[in-house]
Amino acid sequence: MILALAGGVGGAKLAHGLQMVLGADELVTVVNTGDDFEHYGLRVCPDLDTVAYTLSGRANPETGWGLAGETWAFHGQLSALGQAPWFQLGDKDLATHAIRTSALRDGRTLSEATRSLTRTLGVPSRIEPMSDDDVRTFAITDEGALAFQEYFVRRRCEPVVERLEYRGLGDARPSPGFLAALESPSLRAIVICPSNPYLSTAPILGLADIEARISAAPAPVIAVSPIVGGAAVKGPAAKLMVEFGTEPSAASVAEHYGDLLDGFVLDTIDEPLAGEIRGPRVMVTASIMKSDADRARLARDVLSLSEQL
Amino acid sequence: MILALAGGVGGAKLAHGLQMVLGADELVTVVNTGDDFEHYGLRVCPDLDTVAYTLSGRANPETGWGLAGETWAFHGQLSALGQAPWFQLGDKDLATHAIRTSALRDGRTLSEATRSLTRTLGVPSRIEPMSDDDVRTFAITDEGALAFQEYFVRRRCEPVVERLEYRGLGDARPSPGFLAALESPSLRAIVICPSNPYLSTAPILGLADIEARISAAPAPVIAVSPIVGGAAVKGPAAKLMVEFGTEPSAASVAEHYGDLLDGFVLDTIDEPLAGEIRGPRVMVTASIMKSDADRARLARDVLSLSEQL
Repeated sequence: MILALAGGVGGAKLAHGLQMVLGADELVTVVNTGDDFEHYGLRVCPDLDTVAYTLSGRANPETGWGLAGETWAFHGQLSALGQAPWFQLGDKDLATHAIRTSALRDGRTLSEATRSLTRTLGVPSRIEPMSDDDVRTFAITDEGALAFQEYFVRRRCEPVVERLEYRGLGDARPSPGFLAALESPSLRAIVICPSNPYLSTAPILGLADIEARISAAPAPVIAVSPIVGGAAVKGPAAKLMVEFGTEPSAASVAEHYGDLLDGFVLDTIDEPLAGEIRGPRVMVTASIMKSDADRARLARDVLSLSEQL
Repeated sequence: MILALAGGVGGAKLAHGLQMVLGADELVTVVNTGDDFEHYGLRVCPDLDTVAYTLSGRANPETGWGLAGETWAFHGQLSALGQAPWFQLGDKDLATHAIRTSALRDGRTLSEATRSLTRTLGVPSRIEPMSDDDVRTFAITDEGALAFQEYFVRRRCEPVVERLEYRGLGDARPSPGFLAALESPSLRAIVICPSNPYLSTAPILGLADIEARISAAPAPVIAVSPIVGGAAVKGPAAKLMVEFGTEPSAASVAEHYGDLLDGFVLDTIDEPLAGEIRGPRVMVTASIMKSDADRARLARDVLSLSEQL
């Protein structure tokens, strides 16, 4: 069994590749919930939904997030009623948030709500939230503290970030499914997907004693760089690195994860950096995932590296 | 100024007629909120919305409720995800609930949320909820206690009702707009619209000392019968009368309101009953509202009766 740790679009793509090359019961994807928020009374979990839509084959292929064939009557009506809506909630996507909100109000955990939703969406493998407790990422910026979606969507990552706060993280327990996967005797590898190291994987790795548990697990830990050629494939990872005084490079990602890693995957374009990376076994391969075939190939490369470790 | 007390479709139609024949600042419609409920985390106010959609000219002309030109992608997706949704929430209609829910979560009152929503919807006259406090109508039936929408929509009024409970009514205060309208020196008439006497107007009249305030107001009180030819024009009013051991007739409606009434309007088909009604001045007129012209004509008749009282 492979445990993948993922944020949004980039993580979902590699998780999808792993799902394609593994059996349905051989993959558990644990997803960041620090991006979650309440919007118009509904609980929205952007990363969980991106992963679920991607793994069920329902994701919008143009955006990477949201549902294919989405309609926008709700969004248009909000605009018509003067709301200037800054977070795009499609009509079909709203059903996901409504069902989840209803389940949570009925006292079910986010893990239970996610299991039920992913089953009805038709996700073949398992998706687990990193925690059933609320963690909320805030960007402390030159414009003040911004809740994650305010920073990420409303302000399009434009404010300069001084630091990030993961509110609630100190008290949050890893989800039962996350702990079970880490303790599973059949765990063959832990894959840190090409997600933002600060916004997506930091909340997952920052939970309780998760880093110690990952280090202690006999399975190798492999990260795939979300930085290719000095730029983020998607999102503000490189911009944040600059703001944090770090060179935006695949090598900096490897350094960020440090001793946690047994293996590290970087793109062929970054081959010159391979020699700089101390510690993990480095694999150089084509890591940009434009097609399903790209996803499956990268997944196979990652699994092949894990077997060497 | 005219104060109209209304529930859903029937009340909305007469309020619309009054709005057509009066100036925009000459009508205040106070609406039942006993039908309100929380659905998938959203605050839904069916009667307020029916009145607002009708008075803004946005109502679906075929159903009387909901928005014209509605789409159902959200509803379809709920079904596709196995939810068997029993309450129809259109994609555009959802925007109303989302905006209201957001306003209430931000600490605004239902009156404030309603004022803002009705303005953006383009309602020319004023609509006020009966109360800013929660009142929830329950039908105590042969299948047990059913929350109003469970009884009305999910079970299509099929269970036999033993009695109705208006939970929260004892502690609910009339809304500031309701009280202001009753105390206005320009109040010319109080019109009890052709709404269900038990489900729609009983919660309004049962608030605090509202009945005493209405009796004490110098303006005449006129009710329009929702029962025509022994049947309800719409909804379960006649069925409830039978279950409560009352003959379903316009005369029973007049008796129900009793001393509160100065005037009573019944349909031409019920002319033979006019002599039975003791107390209020009776007007016999065509009360079925199939067109906007019907609404305006009935409104003119009601205002003409009020001027005689």
